[in-house]
This record gives sequence, structure tokens and C-alpha cells, in this order.
Amino acid sequence: MSAEIICVGTELLLGDILNTNARFLALELARLGIPHYYQTVVGDNIDRLQKAIAVAIDRASILIFTGGLGPTPDDLTTEAIADFFQTPLREDPEILAEIEAKFAGVGRVMTPSNRKQALIPVGAEFLPNPSGTAPGLIWKPRSNLTLLTFPGVPSEMKRMWEETAVPYLESQGWGKERIYSRSLKFRGIGESALAEKVSHLLELSNPTVAPYAGMGEVRLRVSARAASETEALALIDPVAAEIQSIAGLDYFGADDDTLASIVGQLLRERGQTVSVAESCTGGGLGEIITEIAGSSEYFFGGVISYDNRVKIALLDVSEADLQTFGAVSETVARQMAIGVKQRLGTDWGVSITGIAGPGGGSETKPVGLVYIGLADPAGGVEVWENRFGERRDRSIIRQLSAFTALDRIRRQLLTMF
Amino acid sequence: MSAEIICVGTELLLGDILNTNARFLALELARLGIPHYYQTVVGDNIDRLQKAIAVAIDRASILIFTGGLGPTPDDLTTEAIADFFQTPLREDPEILAEIEAKFAGVGRVMTPSNRKQALIPVGAEFLPNPSGTAPGLIWKPRSNLTLLTFPGVPSEMKRMWEETAVPYLESQGWGKERIYSRSLKFRGIGESALAEKVSHLLELSNPTVAPYAGMGEVRLRVSARAASETEALALIDPVAAEIQSIAGLDYFGADDDTLASIVGQLLRERGQTVSVAESCTGGGLGEIITEIAGSSEYFFGGVISYDNRVKIALLDVSEADLQTFGAVSETVARQMAIGVKQRLGTDWGVSITGIAGPGGGSETKPVGLVYIGLADPAGGVEVWENRFGERRDRSIIRQLSAFTALDRIRRQLLTMF
Repeated sequence: MSAEIICVGTELLLGDILNTNARFLALELARLGIPHYYQTVVGDNIDRLQKAIAVAIDRASILIFTGGLGPTPDDLTTEAIADFFQTPLREDPEILAEIEAKFAGVGRVMTPSNRKQALIPVGAEFLPNPSGTAPGLIWKPRSNLTLLTFPGVPSEMKRMWEETAVPYLESQGWGKERIYSRSLKFRGIGESALAEKVSHLLELSNPTVAPYAGMGEVRLRVSARAASETEALALIDPVAAEIQSIAGLDYFGADDDTLASIVGQLLRERGQTVSVAESCTGGGLGEIITEIAGSSEYFFGGVISYDNRVKIALLDVSEADLQTFGAVSETVARQMAIGVKQRLGTDWGVSITGIAGPGGGSETKPVGLVYIGLADPAGGVEVWENRFGERRDRSIIRQLSAFTALDRIRRQLLTMF
Repeated sequence: MSAEIICVGTELLLGDILNTNARFLALELARLGIPHYYQTVVGDNIDRLQKAIAVAIDRASILIFTGGLGPTPDDLTTEAIADFFQTPLREDPEILAEIEAKFAGVGRVMTPSNRKQALIPVGAEFLPNPSGTAPGLIWKPRSNLTLLTFPGVPSEMKRMWEETAVPYLESQGWGKERIYSRSLKFRGIGESALAEKVSHLLELSNPTVAPYAGMGEVRLRVSARAASETEALALIDPVAAEIQSIAGLDYFGADDDTLASIVGQLLRERGQTVSVAESCTGGGLGEIITEIAGSSEYFFGGVISYDNRVKIALLDVSEADLQTFGAVSETVARQMAIGVKQRLGTDWGVSITGIAGPGGGSETKPVGLVYIGLADPAGGVEVWENRFGERRDRSIIRQLSAFTALDRIRRQLLTMF
């Protein structure tokens, strides 16, 4: 018993879009413990789609289709499947009424082409689509073979998968042993250094521990196969705790935690506030902090001091020091952090000034040189010099700057208060 | 004659990574005019990989493999292919020396497992890998069938594709007629409204005109099949010009242009400067403007006035008006735009104040209500009220706010000066 994913859509063959549906479904199948050995992508062509079905039914007993359920003549997944199994289509009056109601609900009239979406092979059942017009179907055209179809629009597919397909697969006995995972996140340590520190854990079999690449951060995934969440947690918790204790301050959170959410949580717990003074990041640090809903509780705002005149006028940076040391200097980073803390009246003031490139670098101050300043509630100020590398992209240097600044606040919050 | 892509890697079946390689190769095949009807993903399993090869050779004459070229026992693409065509492997001394040299170059010693990467089916040729140790191969195991293998690491695969595979495919006669495309970008008009306006062009056959979804913006792609870029431009240019003239101000740029790059170009041409006052976007507008290298020429900076105290202290917003009208109001947006323009001494001042949600909305001021203010060099101020929708995500509302503000500057720059 294994499943196969068949993604239908010429836009995938043209490279117009990334196949995020295949990845989502792959993760879900792994989570439910359903083996899955092949994925196929095929265009909006009935003959080639049927050839793909012919290949897949010899290899798998669950075929999951995405795409080709829309109202246009290009959308032919249902038709292709029905024809392949030589089964006539019937119009389902209930689904037709539902589609009509959806159109009426947004003040539009259903077109004749949408009527096609109410067609279903005789013997199949509909998979309702709560967020779009195209329903999918569940069909056992013969014993030991189940077909599930989903629209290609990722948000609709995901919702249908969760609300209708997962309960169905569970009712068929799948998912009794599942894989439960926790993703542990780290900052300030490289992947190989971390892997070395926890090397004895990388050989475990249940739970398993594996490093994987996140968006510019190091992660370890602890995965347990278990019959219930409670059992899984009993396996995961002690290993996660051991990893956290080994990693110390380099560990910052798990799963949905982000640096910004953790910093927000720490500030909220301490009833403290923060403001930002940004040069090379141009507002990016404030943007990340305010991604968190409710950040107005601890984030007052800041100054984007891209031009030196703004550093002087709004952050009280000394004009003489700007001339002597330059805008990208330890001195100016210090004054910016103090300036924004004082002007905005917050407990913490954080500053970033650096050279994001590609221009503007020199021998002594290369691209990638970034100073991060942090004025703390006790009246102290620390400044860190970072060299993010001359060859790195402007956007990477800017991102690293913002995240490193956030991480500095996190570490100070954890060690000072 | 068509090509097929076979991506090898259990990490794809587990959903660990997105299949960006398949998309890259799909775009490249389309560009070179090589038909491509199927993609297959299969795990690191010799039996299943060989089954996938058996299916693919009946459908295509060029098979492009990615993944499975590394040094570990899991990497078995070369072995699987050689065995499938019952061809022995030979060790290539030149490649072995190259791999040894690469290890020596980074001060490491080659392990015995890396020796495996110098194995090649008798009769095949190596595709050099300039950026990694795993070379690929080109092999015609029988007439009318060409196999190309690439490593799974996207950066290595791309470089090998461009430097070695494309010249090879061209030498085989592919790519004489290529597809050249220009992507036209629009703001302020929906996809269906735009499609209606240019409906007569959507029926052209060379060039073709097709709407496609960009990241929150509407795009039309004009694609011509031609033997040279000059010929392609002769087909694309008049159609692109007609579309631009139909779309008017809603058209903002093509290909690599972004709203921020266009606004930067317009400001630079006019020798004008801009500053930002941001509430709900928290620095996101400044971040987008400063993505452009050299933006310091026209962007001075701004104030992130998340808290009302910052609006008063740094933007001279009236405390009484804040109480009377609220922070999210036409009046406050106006004062923020004027305040930042005056404080920073720029020609333009732009402001954003709104409710990004999910909390903070009310009946009269729902989530998604965002005011954008723009103080212009002539002393005028305009404020626009936007309702981006209560059901939209916080992050979408923030992005829409920033991009709408940029677009307002663009339109004023084009119409006022």
C-alpha cells in the first residue's frame, strides 16, 4: 500500500510556478505514515494524463491528483479519470446548487462552464471545497485503488486536504502510527558545529534527530513515530531538553517561534520596551519586530537614519564624530542606540549602521561591515562589530544585520534580566 | 523528440525541500524550445529509479536527472543508469585527479567514498562540475536517447546546466528557435480587468500575450518564438508598446523593474528626495525603498511611529487630533506626511497609518483600513483611504500598504513633474 502524487498543470511544465503542492502533500503523507515513492507532473493533456495514470496504478494504491478541476476546457482531470476507468459522468444536483450559491454569495452569475464542475464519475463521492468553486472527489474505481482529486490552488488544496482528506484516510486506518516532529532553532552557531556537539543524538532511531536548513538559521528536527501525541512527546521532550542544555544561549525557540516572537515574549514578560535606529537595514528591523501581532505593547518605533543629517537631527549623533569616525563606526552605532532610546523613551535602544553594498566599501571598511549597538535599561551600551563578508548580497547582509541585532537583544534580555 | 526530468532524492519524497530544480529546468527547456511533458520524482532507491527510467525512455528522447551523484551509498544515479543499460562502469583517471585536486585545494584529504564519483559508464562523457566535487554525465546509451545527469545541489546544477549542458544541447541543434519573453508589470488594476482591456492581444500566436500571477502584482508576459533576440524584439516591442499605451499609468515597468526601482529612477531623474513616516508597516516601506543599491541618493530616512508618542515627538502630529480622530485617520496621515517631510528636509514625505490586524479593528475602523499620505514638493498633501479587507492576513495588509504607498509616489511623480 503506497500513495502517489500526480500534479496536473502545463504551468508546472513551463516552470511558471514552483510545485509547492507536491511538497505539502509529501510532508503530510510522511506525517500520516503513508509510504510514497513517486511523484509525477503532467500537463493539461488528456492523453498524457491517462498514460501517467496507467503507470501509477501499477505502482500505488492511492493516487492523489492536484490541478485540472477548474471550469475551463483545459481542466480535464475528472474527465480523464472517468474515461480511463470507462465510467460515465453524472451531474450532481447538490454540488450544482452549492456552486450556484457560491456565485450568488459574491454577487456573480454562474457561467455555463462552471456547470462542468458539478460532474462526477458514477460511483464517486465529492470532496467539498470550502474556499473555492471546484470540488474534488474520492473514488474507488476498483478494489484496492483509491483516487483523491484536489484543485491546484494551494490554499484550497490545503484546506480540503485537512478538512476532508485526512479524516477520510484516518477512517481507512491510516495515521495510527504517525510521525510527530519538533523543530529546534538556533542562532549563533553553524550547522556542522552544532551537529558535532549533539553527534551522539544523531544516531538515535526513535526519536530521530536531524539537522536541516532553514531560512538563514540552523535547525534540528526531532521526530518520533508514535501512536499518540502523548507517546510522541514522551520520546521527544527529553531529547529536546538535552539538546537545549547542550546548545545553551544558541538555542532560541521551537516550531513557530521566531527571533522576533521570542524577543517580544521576553520584553513582555519583563514589561520593557524597545526602539530601533536603522541605517543600512532601512526599516527592516522594525518591519521584522512588527510582524508580530501585538508588538505595539513593547515596540514604540524608531528612526530610519539613512542619511547622516537624520542621524544628527533625530538621534543626536555628534556631527564631529560622524566626520572623524564615519557613519559606519563603533562610536556612531553607540550614539544611535543611546539617541533612539532617549528620544523615544524606551528601556532598550538598538542601532544598526553598516555597509550593505554592493558599493560603498573600502579597504578598512569593507562591504559587510556592520556595527550593532544596544543601549540597555541599566544605562549601559554595548556595540558589536560584524563582518558579514564582502561577497555576500546586499539583501543577505541586510537580513543578517537585522536578525543579528534581534539576537543581541535576546541574549542581553536572557542574561541581564 | 521531447525531454523528461527525473529528480532523484528521498528528501523530495519526504517534503524536506521544494523541488526548485524541476522548475529551473522546466523554464530552461521552454526557453530552448525543447518539448517537455513529464517530470518524475523518485527516492534514493535503485529498483524504483530503474522502474522510472523504464517508463521514461518510452516517452522521451532526452532524460535529465538531478540528484544522487554524491559520495554516499545513498547516491546511486550513475550506478542505476549503468546497470539499467547493462553497461560496466570505469574509473576515469582525469576526473579522479580533478576530485583529488579539489580536496587538496580546500586543505582536505579525499575519502575513499569520493572515489566513487570518478566512476562513469563505458561510452559516457563527463559533464564537469566547476563548483562541486560531483561531476555529471552525458551519455547516449542507444540511438535516439540522451541522458544528462546533474547533482541535486541547485547552485551546482544551475552552473553545470548553463556552462556545459546548454552548449551541448545547442550543438545538437536545439535552441535555434527560442522563446524570448518580456514580463510587463502593473499596479492598480486587477488581472481580469486588464485581460479584458487587452483581450484582442491575448489571441495572438507570435508573440503570445498571457496574464500570470506575480507576487501581489498583475503581470502580462509577451513571448515570441524567434531565431534571434533581434527578431524576437521586433515581434515583442510593438505589442508591449500597445499594452503600455492601453494600460496608461497602471503599467509601471518590465522584467527586473520593481516599484522601488522605478520610484528611485524617477526621483533621481528629478533630483528629488523622499522620507517615510510609518506606523502599521513598522519600517517595511523604508526597507523596500532601500533594497535598491544607491537609494541613499534620494532616500533620507524616516520615522517608525508605531506608538502615538513617537508621532507627537518626532513627527509633530497634534496630540489633540490624535485624541479626536484617532491614529488611523485622514488627519493624522496628513500630519505624519508633512511632519516627516519637514523634519527630514526632503522634497516628498509619505506616511502610512492603518490597522494591520488581526486585533485592533472596530465597526467604523475595520482591520485593513489604511491611510496613505503624501506631501509633495509644491507644498500640497494628498491622503488616500484604503480598505484592504478585514479577512486579509496581517502580513498581506502590511505589504499592500507599503506597495500602495510606493505606487502613490510613482503616480504623483509621473503626473506632477
